[in-house]
Amino acid sequence: MKLKLFAATALLCLGSLLSAGAQERVEQWGRFEAAFTGTPTGNPFNDVDLKAIFTNGNETVKVTGFYDGNGIYKIRFMPCEQGTWTYTTVSNMKSLHGKTGSLVCVPATGDNHGMVGVRDVYDFQYADGTPYYPFGTTMYAFVHPDTARENLTLKTLSQSPFNKIRICLFPKTYGHNNDEPRYFPFLKVEGMSPEGLNEVAVWDFTRFDTDFFHHLERRIDDLERLGIQCDLILFHPYDEGHFGFDRMSHETDIRYLKYVVARLSSFRNIWWSMANEYDFMRQKPLEDWYSFLETVAAEDPYGHLRSVHNGKIYFDHHHPLVTHLSIQNESVTDDFGRAGLVKDSYRKPLVFDEICYEGDYPNRWGSLSGEELTHRFWQAAIVGAYATHGETFESDDHIAWTEKGAILRGKSAPRIAFLRRLIEKTGSLKIIDNWRNLNTSLAKSGQVVIYLGRQAPKEWEFNVPTRVGWKDGMRVKIEVLDTWNMTTTPVDGEFVTQRKPKYEICEANGRKVKLPGRPYMALVLTPVTE
Amino acid sequence: MKLKLFAATALLCLGSLLSAGAQERVEQWGRFEAAFTGTPTGNPFNDVDLKAIFTNGNETVKVTGFYDGNGIYKIRFMPCEQGTWTYTTVSNMKSLHGKTGSLVCVPATGDNHGMVGVRDVYDFQYADGTPYYPFGTTMYAFVHPDTARENLTLKTLSQSPFNKIRICLFPKTYGHNNDEPRYFPFLKVEGMSPEGLNEVAVWDFTRFDTDFFHHLERRIDDLERLGIQCDLILFHPYDEGHFGFDRMSHETDIRYLKYVVARLSSFRNIWWSMANEYDFMRQKPLEDWYSFLETVAAEDPYGHLRSVHNGKIYFDHHHPLVTHLSIQNESVTDDFGRAGLVKDSYRKPLVFDEICYEGDYPNRWGSLSGEELTHRFWQAAIVGAYATHGETFESDDHIAWTEKGAILRGKSAPRIAFLRRLIEKTGSLKIIDNWRNLNTSLAKSGQVVIYLGRQAPKEWEFNVPTRVGWKDGMRVKIEVLDTWNMTTTPVDGEFVTQRKPKYEICEANGRKVKLPGRPYMALVLTPVTE
Repeated sequence: MKLKLFAATALLCLGSLLSAGAQERVEQWGRFEAAFTGTPTGNPFNDVDLKAIFTNGNETVKVTGFYDGNGIYKIRFMPCEQGTWTYTTVSNMKSLHGKTGSLVCVPATGDNHGMVGVRDVYDFQYADGTPYYPFGTTMYAFVHPDTARENLTLKTLSQSPFNKIRICLFPKTYGHNNDEPRYFPFLKVEGMSPEGLNEVAVWDFTRFDTDFFHHLERRIDDLERLGIQCDLILFHPYDEGHFGFDRMSHETDIRYLKYVVARLSSFRNIWWSMANEYDFMRQKPLEDWYSFLETVAAEDPYGHLRSVHNGKIYFDHHHPLVTHLSIQNESVTDDFGRAGLVKDSYRKPLVFDEICYEGDYPNRWGSLSGEELTHRFWQAAIVGAYATHGETFESDDHIAWTEKGAILRGKSAPRIAFLRRLIEKTGSLKIIDNWRNLNTSLAKSGQVVIYLGRQAPKEWEFNVPTRVGWKDGMRVKIEVLDTWNMTTTPVDGEFVTQRKPKYEICEANGRKVKLPGRPYMALVLTPVTE
Repeated sequence: MKLKLFAATALLCLGSLLSAGAQERVEQWGRFEAAFTGTPTGNPFNDVDLKAIFTNGNETVKVTGFYDGNGIYKIRFMPCEQGTWTYTTVSNMKSLHGKTGSLVCVPATGDNHGMVGVRDVYDFQYADGTPYYPFGTTMYAFVHPDTARENLTLKTLSQSPFNKIRICLFPKTYGHNNDEPRYFPFLKVEGMSPEGLNEVAVWDFTRFDTDFFHHLERRIDDLERLGIQCDLILFHPYDEGHFGFDRMSHETDIRYLKYVVARLSSFRNIWWSMANEYDFMRQKPLEDWYSFLETVAAEDPYGHLRSVHNGKIYFDHHHPLVTHLSIQNESVTDDFGRAGLVKDSYRKPLVFDEICYEGDYPNRWGSLSGEELTHRFWQAAIVGAYATHGETFESDDHIAWTEKGAILRGKSAPRIAFLRRLIEKTGSLKIIDNWRNLNTSLAKSGQVVIYLGRQAPKEWEFNVPTRVGWKDGMRVKIEVLDTWNMTTTPVDGEFVTQRKPKYEICEANGRKVKLPGRPYMALVLTPVTE
């Protein structure tokens, strides 16, 4: 497993730290930042428009600036091409207008492969062409507990297989997680309710708390150093009026999205998740989600990945602004033949972002065994889709990993690492004969991967669908994988292919593979090339 | 089973049979036709525009007329509201312009319930509100063999459970079906190739053969008299250049669609199926299918159902002009938990129009047992979707039911009738707890239907998901259905409900249902109301 520990990035090269006039060097897909002192009057979050036009001669990128408190306005920029970039600001505030500057975008180093996008219909890749296979986890309140817990979480993540994490921007309140957070995204104003919307907490929804955002940004950069994509959940229903962030006015929702995107779109590891369980947010009409997608897409100059995660009713994932599927479904990775049907119904990369969690919660969704969650990751992988992990063990402090991080207690994480290592070696999988042999996939590498699931056979009779295209007399080496015990055992010698009439390739001499009679076994078939 | 034999319809009240000036009476959703003698010059199919504007004072419907040969131009109109309708024609041919007339639309009689549309997201209903549950069959070349065979087919259909049929407009050629048809939709012109497209047959693609269409129309009316919806396949790939109808120019495709819709949209039992296996028609770029949908939708004033049936790659069924799913998939109805995933992915009525056929063909898709095809119908029904039948037995003349009709040889048809009778009694089904109890559905009637599939248990322990909403102490009567042997056996006495913690309702006294230990059993649970 490739862990991207504290890769050198351009994150420290901040414009605001350099003296004016010096030409800053920023890595490709790194982050350039320039800070300007304005002369704020009224509400600087609301009253000031600030844009900057960056150009390298060929390409022009327009970014939106933001007010960062203390009289400071900032613009951020992620250069996606190497070379010299210059910029000019445009603002309705005289002291911010017409500022110019430049930077030199230098080659990326270390584990900086750029931002992740879509490749070949069903897959992901980094901007530099490196494949990206999401092996995600879920931690709704990652940025809301306290520094010690957050640091412990980062340490755990650094030793985990996870390269994507779903986190909520807004704090969450319910059941197992009802401590009040330290920071809030809006300024708290005691004694007044500016929009008359919220009877519990009282917020000035027109002013953001920049401490909240500085903290969030620090944590997103921490994730980037670990090679982890941050699937940032912009709205969620786990509020129910407690904070009131689930029922702000539409105008506030849009203003909030624009501010978030202005601050964060230059972070290369950001993915925009419009919601967790969008359909459970009963205050929002369906058309809001389209306008959220449109707002985020319009404000983000780089086109970070966008999704809408469901409770019970899938979002319209065919919408062109949805880049990939982020689906909750508790049954789809339970058995063969299911996950592929969802893949066929859309034609976008498919991430099953909620398939129940490993844990001991009393709810069905939080009480999978480690075996079951591992099995579900394989069910997704075998059809070329991806699953997302979560852990809900009740501990002394009643805060589970999927709520607030800290440490992993389950058994699935190391098995997910074992699977990730395989997929990073073979490339993504595709069912060869997708209406028949539902456990048999062709890998990008040309290898065939077969997952036997809960069956516990004592032997496997060589059998690959004809559609794999292998000729008669081909020699094949086989490895037996115990996906639970994380062992890979090569089978001695070679197998020789022979076509049977119409649909099957068998072994010329009827040779079988001996198996231990345990469940969760897989086979990797590698054609021998001269 | 309700067979709609030779229902009295308004089809015989044709305007052309009445003397001018008499006010014709046409049933609601019946068909009005007026014929006009023109003065054709040049190509009357191409050169003459004829429209008629019908109005009843409230509503205005614009229909397109067509040339029917022998100097006769026609307009057809399906009145959807009762009362007096008047019309005026508009044409670029003087002798057809400004013609007026009227009709009185009278209440529908007999089995005339109007045309079928979508109801409540997932269901179908007739225009008068009567539910419609599609139990379809497939017969590609229904209108292409010979009169004797077609009449035999109609007789077989009249005794079958099928109320929908998929037929191809264009003739088909391959393997088991290579007799040349009697009629072709275009005029055959020996010795010239007007569009230079076709080296095998030579057609004047600008002139239609009205004999072909008269014959087709007679057969569509025959189906209507049997209460059978005609899912008319407008393009298909089973030609491969033999006739050349799979590779006409886009201009010809559109002209053909407009002519077909002008002739047939007043037939209330028409459904428009843009294609069989659209993705196998490699001559057509994807955008063609959108333009076909747009053309048909624009030309059809009544909004008949529209679908695009796939080979391997589903069409974009989310497109607003696709009214329902017509899906081919060989695995989706094979096991529990699958069909519902496709339903969740779209949110439209779902018809699995190809799930393999009962027969003895050497291909996998044509060699299901009767048990298997019946099981697949139940797999669709239990999630509130619908399946379509087909039969591919090789007989002496090598023409199977699904090619050219005649007689049914399989065992599934009477079992499909048994299922249809149940669904017409219970109303459509919906999985109660759609991620868990994948064999247990709530019917519109309030009954619970449980299908046990290939399991062959000796008893059934009372167990219904809490989400059904039944209270403790409710009394329930149970019937045991043997879906293969077509028996319904009431269980003596009543069962009393009791909730178990969180997810399940069991029987208060632990009472079980005895079962015969055979596969393909179902249970119908009926709450006892005072």
